[in-house]
Amino acid sequence: GGLNPPNTNVRWRLPAVCFVWQLSMIILFGVFVRYNEESDTHWVDYRKGNNITSDIENDFYFRYPSFQDVHVMIFVGFGFLMTFLKRYSFGAVGFNFLIAAFGIQWALLMQGWFHSLDYTDGKIKIGVENLINADFCVAGCLIAYGAVLGKVSPVQLLVMTLFGITLFAVEEYIILNVLHAKDAGGSMVIHTFGAYYGLSISWVLYRPNLDKSKHLNGSVYHSDVFAMIGTLFLWMFWPSFNSAIADHGDGQHRAAINTYLALASTVLTTVAISSLFEKTGKLDMVHIQNSTLAGGVAVGTAAEFMLSPYGSLIVGFFCGIISTMGYIHFSPFLEEKLKIQDTCGIHNLHAMPGVIGGIVGAIAATAATNTVYGDLGLENTFDFTGPFAKRVPTIQGGYQAAGLCVALCFAIGGGIFVGLVLKLPIWGDPADENCFDDEIYWEVRQFLLTFAGN
Amino acid sequence: GGLNPPNTNVRWRLPAVCFVWQLSMIILFGVFVRYNEESDTHWVDYRKGNNITSDIENDFYFRYPSFQDVHVMIFVGFGFLMTFLKRYSFGAVGFNFLIAAFGIQWALLMQGWFHSLDYTDGKIKIGVENLINADFCVAGCLIAYGAVLGKVSPVQLLVMTLFGITLFAVEEYIILNVLHAKDAGGSMVIHTFGAYYGLSISWVLYRPNLDKSKHLNGSVYHSDVFAMIGTLFLWMFWPSFNSAIADHGDGQHRAAINTYLALASTVLTTVAISSLFEKTGKLDMVHIQNSTLAGGVAVGTAAEFMLSPYGSLIVGFFCGIISTMGYIHFSPFLEEKLKIQDTCGIHNLHAMPGVIGGIVGAIAATAATNTVYGDLGLENTFDFTGPFAKRVPTIQGGYQAAGLCVALCFAIGGGIFVGLVLKLPIWGDPADENCFDDEIYWEVRQFLLTFAGN
Amino acid sequence: GGLNPPNTNVRWRLPAVCFVWQLSMIILFGVFVRYNEESDTHWVDYRKGNNITSDIENDFYFRYPSFQDVHVMIFVGFGFLMTFLKRYSFGAVGFNFLIAAFGIQWALLMQGWFHSLDYTDGKIKIGVENLINADFCVAGCLIAYGAVLGKVSPVQLLVMTLFGITLFAVEEYIILNVLHAKDAGGSMVIHTFGAYYGLSISWVLYRPNLDKSKHLNGSVYHSDVFAMIGTLFLWMFWPSFNSAIADHGDGQHRAAINTYLALASTVLTTVAISSLFEKTGKLDMVHIQNSTLAGGVAVGTAAEFMLSPYGSLIVGFFCGIISTMGYIHFSPFLEEKLKIQDTCGIHNLHAMPGVIGGIVGAIAATAATNTVYGDLGLENTFDFTGPFAKRVPTIQGGYQAAGLCVALCFAIGGGIFVGLVLKLPIWGDPADENCFDDEIYWEVRQFLLTFAGN
Repeated sequence: GGLNPPNTNVRWRLPAVCFVWQLSMIILFGVFVRYNEESDTHWVDYRKGNNITSDIENDFYFRYPSFQDVHVMIFVGFGFLMTFLKRYSFGAVGFNFLIAAFGIQWALLMQGWFHSLDYTDGKIKIGVENLINADFCVAGCLIAYGAVLGKVSPVQLLVMTLFGITLFAVEEYIILNVLHAKDAGGSMVIHTFGAYYGLSISWVLYRPNLDKSKHLNGSVYHSDVFAMIGTLFLWMFWPSFNSAIADHGDGQHRAAINTYLALASTVLTTVAISSLFEKTGKLDMVHIQNSTLAGGVAVGTAAEFMLSPYGSLIVGFFCGIISTMGYIHFSPFLEEKLKIQDTCGIHNLHAMPGVIGGIVGAIAATAATNTVYGDLGLENTFDFTGPFAKRVPTIQGGYQAAGLCVALCFAIGGGIFVGLVLKLPIWGDPADENCFDDEIYWEVRQFLLTFAGN
Repeated sequence: GGLNPPNTNVRWRLPAVCFVWQLSMIILFGVFVRYNEESDTHWVDYRKGNNITSDIENDFYFRYPSFQDVHVMIFVGFGFLMTFLKRYSFGAVGFNFLIAAFGIQWALLMQGWFHSLDYTDGKIKIGVENLINADFCVAGCLIAYGAVLGKVSPVQLLVMTLFGITLFAVEEYIILNVLHAKDAGGSMVIHTFGAYYGLSISWVLYRPNLDKSKHLNGSVYHSDVFAMIGTLFLWMFWPSFNSAIADHGDGQHRAAINTYLALASTVLTTVAISSLFEKTGKLDMVHIQNSTLAGGVAVGTAAEFMLSPYGSLIVGFFCGIISTMGYIHFSPFLEEKLKIQDTCGIHNLHAMPGVIGGIVGAIAATAATNTVYGDLGLENTFDFTGPFAKRVPTIQGGYQAAGLCVALCFAIGGGIFVGLVLKLPIWGDPADENCFDDEIYWEVRQFLLTFAGN
Repeated sequence: GGLNPPNTNVRWRLPAVCFVWQLSMIILFGVFVRYNEESDTHWVDYRKGNNITSDIENDFYFRYPSFQDVHVMIFVGFGFLMTFLKRYSFGAVGFNFLIAAFGIQWALLMQGWFHSLDYTDGKIKIGVENLINADFCVAGCLIAYGAVLGKVSPVQLLVMTLFGITLFAVEEYIILNVLHAKDAGGSMVIHTFGAYYGLSISWVLYRPNLDKSKHLNGSVYHSDVFAMIGTLFLWMFWPSFNSAIADHGDGQHRAAINTYLALASTVLTTVAISSLFEKTGKLDMVHIQNSTLAGGVAVGTAAEFMLSPYGSLIVGFFCGIISTMGYIHFSPFLEEKLKIQDTCGIHNLHAMPGVIGGIVGAIAATAATNTVYGDLGLENTFDFTGPFAKRVPTIQGGYQAAGLCVALCFAIGGGIFVGLVLKLPIWGDPADENCFDDEIYWEVRQFLLTFAGN
């Protein structure tokens, strides 16, 4: 260790933050949050008043299966994807759990104020769609976690999440409501934002001597298998992610199909590039664990659109290539030249595919026609109603592109600010030689399974 | 080993029990069990007869997604949660599998006789709700398994399950039907019962010399990661557990929201206490694996009620504290003073939170008003219909409390009786020095992954 | 190694196949595949035209939860089930991922041409049911992978999948459409076909000197735990598999119940036989991982029928016995006498139970009566409509049996042909001494988790 290793004892800081913030959540929920008309006991009256013939038309039944899939992605998907490091699996899955559990509460409030405030009584009214959106909001912060994995303390992660959720809710409001851009699967709102937010933080927190813990910055056989649990649950449930808050009926249906196809296509090009760039054609688990998911990211914005099945395949095709090339060529460049240390390679999995997704969305919106969508279909898909009744696809395409810029600005600006906050020497982060090591923040009893008596 | 180690060869006992009991199941199902009107080919006639407009109103579509989540909790959730021991992962996940597979069959019969008997033909008519209830019933026995993990033979586990399911079905009938208490998520019926049943058995089976296998009564790095698979699937799907058999519409919707919130809150206080009580502020995987779930247990009974979002957060807040404190302070006391050896700490995860859940339910029922629930909402939520049409919330609160007492009595009385049965020296249980060791009941080929040629 | 070890460098072959095939998929999808009326933006018009009162009646809501369960079975279930080998976990889960991702695309086309071609415009119209069927189709190829696990190159696997999907689509068309046999869970179409296809390939590819890599053809402690993840997700979601494309309403409901019961029963007899045939009564993880699933295979064809709950238990009872006995007695015979090397024992898990499932289906169809099914119920269950309006149960039973024969013929004939193709010395398969070793096709960084500094 160094002469003056930083103090990584978080005994007072971590409990204090957890207690105070959780108490604040209780108070704020007490003041602001109530059930909405579909989760309140008055639903029976609401049903009658609105001629709803059956309980099955409660939004719960449209969205709960997708919600649970998204929930699995957040906690098992992101959590296990990051267990690939040989000795940071507790931190990966455990801190992911912690910040997601805090984040969903704060997100319900922040998103609630922007989207679900009942102006008649000043309360946020929540239902299953709010739960999904809270999970989405947290996804942005978990993506950011990937960039700094192993290099920060749990207190820093909580701070990062507090600011991340706040920034997310504002940029989301601007993109979805003010600009009226569409982003069903969150290529812009979630992935672009989350990735550049994390990368900016990592840039500010650059550690020139990270080499000191290089021996722990890699995988071991079984940790790679654990990470595949994360990969596969993300991959399998991504169709639910992109369709979870899409329109009832054909919207959810089409979003699921598009995502299913984009992801299938990505797997093949990821394998191709991974094998092609290795001297003897061997595959690299890093690529299989990450780049196979790029198609799901990139098809997010346009998932609800009439991208058509082959369009989805094309998006996945290129993203598999770009993402894997990113791991091979761009990540080293990012670290050496731009001084951005990106533990999980979120630039390749979320940043580039997210931007591509935003662009694909803008193009797909611009190209939308009444012939393909039908008059009502076009109106429904893009919500050309109310104050936006006169908007046309070409204009919509411009607003989609504007949305992408907003996501980038919030991510980079917010990330630099939060990075500076996290640079304060008060958060208990590890020394350069103690990065990627669970023993700093976790009781570790025994590393190796040995024979009886040994 | 000792001079006269017990005979752990279960070669005749285990196959005999499995065969005979499975054959009995076949005969009893042949005599008693049939499809109900929603799973029978006559559904098409039933639909017409009851003016049901669409197949989507078949109960299957209301409950099947929740059922599958519950199913995952039972087999992967409970199974993997118990894999944390360094050398008892096969027993954890394998025996969990065995007793759950037997238990669901026996539960379909036992619960069927009490709840789904068609008096016109003397047959039990089953549908998806019966499958969920059978899974619930088994959950009680799997909780009990947690107390004796590593210390009993598979034959003992099957006996424990046979009696456990039987006791469960009777106490459930008394609590839900006779007392007409509500318990959507089973804080009383499942968790309180299961936990005290297991603890009582463990008390009777107390092993003064368990220290002899102390070196195996702990985790290794990767076994802790495996256990997190169990934790997370339990945590993520708990909203489905508590809402699976709730009322259609707002009932299921609200139960899911309440549980989601209680669990989120629990995670933060668990982390806080875990860090606070460790000298250098490190987190303990035992707490993260278990106490983070306490909020889901405690919000079970009141999940369907208008607990309100902040109410759920409060329940989770305290349960995270109490459960983690339990692991730190109460478990050693339980073992040393009360002679209760509790391998998984079910007292902290299920017993105390279960009792709290029962009390919360009683209070929430007592406090229910027409203003908050609406007239119809109150009637629907508490089923104040038929013979219970005149019951009011304050009285209901009393019956809820009575339900909790019934669960405790059945658990402790039944547990002591079953413990005595299991003390007979005929079941093939391991010697004190062979506890927590898979090699007693499983073929283990190789413990350690070594390099080629080694 | 041998003097002239085969060249396992797949650096050009694997990328070339992935790129060219994926490009072909894009072109073929561009020419042929479009959204169907339920996933197209014109759904809103379709709804009005067909008096569909609510979006909830979109087929998406009937089938999407089951689809996601099936998806998990394909990628996590099959993938992790095969991770049991001590040093082939990357290949198990990774190649499973690759061939499934390719297979679902090719299956959408092949099955689309046979089942979903819109003759008005020559396009295949896809919706959620097509996604499920594509997953089903892939299941056949993944079963076949189990026979050759560890002995083939990824290029061979892709070739095997290309032909396998093609053969599958044709046999499926003949069995389901021409013969009008029913096979909801695919005992014949998926399991019998997939298993004998794989076994035939393995027979052609027989390696007399496979003993050279015998030390790697087995499990290690944690790889057996990983495999249980696969087992349990297959086991838990099998009710969704068998009900995913069953009739709306009672059909799906009943298929789920039958499968749930058959699987429960199988677990007990598997444990019984496993313990009975081991000298000291110990259980074997191989049996628990595999044979516990046999009941799900065998109840596939008849899942939708009025098999009755005890009927399902009986099917599961015998399949647990037969499958476990297969591992103990039949697999060695198969390898030594018939020269069929079957890494995962698919003969015991899929082949025998699949054939039994076909026979059970034929008997159950023959025995169907109007009394049990009701007039409308019988017509619905067996689709005795259109050109098949005059078919009666006894005749249907004959066609069911004919279907089983078709599956066997396609599997064995096709398997031998594909085996011969794969015998060409151009595919980069491993030498006998390098089988079951991830280091041939994967970058492996470090096998063992060691202490810091080591």
